[in-house]
Amino acid sequence: MRFEKPVPLSEIRSLINARIVGNDDGSATGINEIHKVEEGDLVFVDHPKYYQKCIQSAATYIIINKETDFPSNKALLIVDEPFEAYQTIVRHYRPFEPLQKAVSDSASIGEGSIVMPGAVIGHHVQIGKNTVIHPAVVIMDHCIIGNDVIIQSGTVIGSDAFYYNKKTNRDVHYKKMLSCGRVVIEDAVEIGANCTIDRGVSGDTVIGAGTKIDNLVHIGHDTVVGKNCLFAAQVGIAGATVIEDDVILWGQVGVSKTLTIGKGAEVYAQSGVPAGLEGGKKYFGSPAEDAMLKKKELVWIKRIPALWEKAFGK
Amino acid sequence: MRFEKPVPLSEIRSLINARIVGNDDGSATGINEIHKVEEGDLVFVDHPKYYQKCIQSAATYIIINKETDFPSNKALLIVDEPFEAYQTIVRHYRPFEPLQKAVSDSASIGEGSIVMPGAVIGHHVQIGKNTVIHPAVVIMDHCIIGNDVIIQSGTVIGSDAFYYNKKTNRDVHYKKMLSCGRVVIEDAVEIGANCTIDRGVSGDTVIGAGTKIDNLVHIGHDTVVGKNCLFAAQVGIAGATVIEDDVILWGQVGVSKTLTIGKGAEVYAQSGVPAGLEGGKKYFGSPAEDAMLKKKELVWIKRIPALWEKAFGK
Amino acid sequence: MRFEKPVPLSEIRSLINARIVGNDDGSATGINEIHKVEEGDLVFVDHPKYYQKCIQSAATYIIINKETDFPSNKALLIVDEPFEAYQTIVRHYRPFEPLQKAVSDSASIGEGSIVMPGAVIGHHVQIGKNTVIHPAVVIMDHCIIGNDVIIQSGTVIGSDAFYYNKKTNRDVHYKKMLSCGRVVIEDAVEIGANCTIDRGVSGDTVIGAGTKIDNLVHIGHDTVVGKNCLFAAQVGIAGATVIEDDVILWGQVGVSKTLTIGKGAEVYAQSGVPAGLEGGKKYFGSPAEDAMLKKKELVWIKRIPALWEKAFGK
Repeated sequence: MRFEKPVPLSEIRSLINARIVGNDDGSATGINEIHKVEEGDLVFVDHPKYYQKCIQSAATYIIINKETDFPSNKALLIVDEPFEAYQTIVRHYRPFEPLQKAVSDSASIGEGSIVMPGAVIGHHVQIGKNTVIHPAVVIMDHCIIGNDVIIQSGTVIGSDAFYYNKKTNRDVHYKKMLSCGRVVIEDAVEIGANCTIDRGVSGDTVIGAGTKIDNLVHIGHDTVVGKNCLFAAQVGIAGATVIEDDVILWGQVGVSKTLTIGKGAEVYAQSGVPAGLEGGKKYFGSPAEDAMLKKKELVWIKRIPALWEKAFGK
Repeated sequence: MRFEKPVPLSEIRSLINARIVGNDDGSATGINEIHKVEEGDLVFVDHPKYYQKCIQSAATYIIINKETDFPSNKALLIVDEPFEAYQTIVRHYRPFEPLQKAVSDSASIGEGSIVMPGAVIGHHVQIGKNTVIHPAVVIMDHCIIGNDVIIQSGTVIGSDAFYYNKKTNRDVHYKKMLSCGRVVIEDAVEIGANCTIDRGVSGDTVIGAGTKIDNLVHIGHDTVVGKNCLFAAQVGIAGATVIEDDVILWGQVGVSKTLTIGKGAEVYAQSGVPAGLEGGKKYFGSPAEDAMLKKKELVWIKRIPALWEKAFGK
Repeated sequence: MRFEKPVPLSEIRSLINARIVGNDDGSATGINEIHKVEEGDLVFVDHPKYYQKCIQSAATYIIINKETDFPSNKALLIVDEPFEAYQTIVRHYRPFEPLQKAVSDSASIGEGSIVMPGAVIGHHVQIGKNTVIHPAVVIMDHCIIGNDVIIQSGTVIGSDAFYYNKKTNRDVHYKKMLSCGRVVIEDAVEIGANCTIDRGVSGDTVIGAGTKIDNLVHIGHDTVVGKNCLFAAQVGIAGATVIEDDVILWGQVGVSKTLTIGKGAEVYAQSGVPAGLEGGKKYFGSPAEDAMLKKKELVWIKRIPALWEKAFGK
């Protein structure tokens, strides 16, 4: 999440009750996850295993639960509970404002675009030109929709990430990490009916220009889909995954989180993708493998009875 | 289904045109399926195979198509068509009342709870405190939603059970059994976008406290989900199944009906669960098996060509 | 698509700027795809491979990009870009009219039918008698719903086909073929919550009388489903497929495009159907095979270690 304008570090310090070590007179431009941060951003870390990765990331301000060595151009904000500090910052700078009406006054809708009855358009949503939003579509706060986009009925853009911190405290077994990211739909994307595209936790979920998506497709938080991809019905893609340009996923394919599917890969129907796939090839199976090898394997399986007869007789 | 107040047996008798055998001056507290009935309830049975099971169940009043031995503290209501008698009772005591407006006047919404634009809240729905109902969510009649619940956009709670009686009469091939049960969502449950949770046929579909559900998940009628479960996107669970506490189902897992998944079991993505699973273990495959065994099996399959060469030469 | 009334060929000629070869004073009754055309219809073809198939089809008027031999009772409409001519005809005779209100004035709703709050009913929709349209259902323009139908909440009927022409021109990688077909739901069909049924590209998607469909089911464009079928939750059926009467598809089954599943076939949960299936049998697996053979195969796989030991020792 970018802040609307840079926030003085002193303001953050007061908000989360932190002790600052290092340069304390800068301003933070936003808060983000480790793999998305940019210079000027805040990031948080609460496990020593990740201390160095966070401190060495592009982030300038590190919310952390222990004083540690850090580069001189950065600052640490020391608190007991970095995760709670993150939640406090999100709640403060991106407060939950319940919608009062179907189309928020702060939404902007470009020339030639159409919003059909029953659609709900959240706060600060931006819709480009010549875009069609069909009935009962929901676009939640802060999402960005390009030009020449079509979103068919019942689709939800910008639902919260399915992202929980597991707590040993049994009173709150799973604690939701607040989502402050967005969904960004680029130009000429077409999305079918009753799909769901989650917003990023603190970054953006992106659907690249020209990509076409069929019905009942799920795309998880922070996933970045390239240009001119084709996803058939009931495909599901978990969070923080990268789908490069020109990828084709056929019906009911499932893709796991934090992996990359390379440019131009094609995955046949009902396959499951548990790990990254090289581009330019065809895949099949759950777990997905080279489609040709997988098909040969299906033939090999049918030969087991003949092997048995040879080994043990009829 | 519980009746609003106990109904004199004489009233039921007139309604379904039954002959009563046994004590005929009691009152019925509700009507339920065989595995959900309690003392004071009505139950119906039309196949001799299930006569004794119904008569020996907790139910006090048995709607049946033949006079049979029964305990002296119970009564039989004898009719030609017990299934039709059930339908008549449901139609009478839980009549279908089409909604006239988006939020029924008979719904109650607790302090601090928010219902967003486009949501539809049915008759007699009860929503607890500090609960957020996102846009275009539909909660049908009589469902119960706890405190601190989040239901994201487009989700449907309390759709009718997918439950049909097959008729030999070809004019009505499948006859819908009327749903009079409820969905009960306990405290701190979070449900994603465009999910569907069916009401019980005559009992309750229950989602236990603290359970978190991702997008496009389906949960069938009368299924009881424990506390602090985690269901990833596009999971589907059929009817009358029991998912114990702390169960994790990853994306696109399918679970069949009337089985039990034990406490703390974890089922990997795209697996299919056709029969009960012991708790505390990890499973994979369709049909699902012990995950470690299943992974070894995938390795064994790759060795068939070597076996072939050994048996038959190249 | 049928035109509202026959359109003189001269009008079509002017619209798409065609040169007519053959009888030019007839009228066209509609425009359709090759496998759906009837006498009097227009059809288009732009690849020499399909020239003869189109010219020999039932269509009377062939929009084509090259003069070719044809029967004397037909006519060719010669244009440079037949696909674009098709799009122009659809745009002209079935223009996109954005809905201005939740229920179009041109929709007709039969006696005893109920449309619940939040439902959206498009232009020229026809709904029969005693049909229940639950909250937040969307029925798009020109769809036909029979008598005694139940459509549960959030379901979308008549979303556009997922049907694209791939263009070598990288500026528009996939070009959407405009949908001008309909969805026709016959009597006593019941459809669950959050399903999606796409309209035909130029023909009809049909759901046969008495068929029952569970939640989150997807049915593609131009697919024709027979009578008294049963589809469990999360089934997906691609486009232009034929499902004959009495077919049962269990949960999460996927069916590919342009194939036929024969009468009374039953496909077990999570199976994938890549090619036609004979009626009256049971199937399992992805790809689906005879269920009994498939189950035996699962047993054979478990015997590989014993084969290995015999061949190579422990």
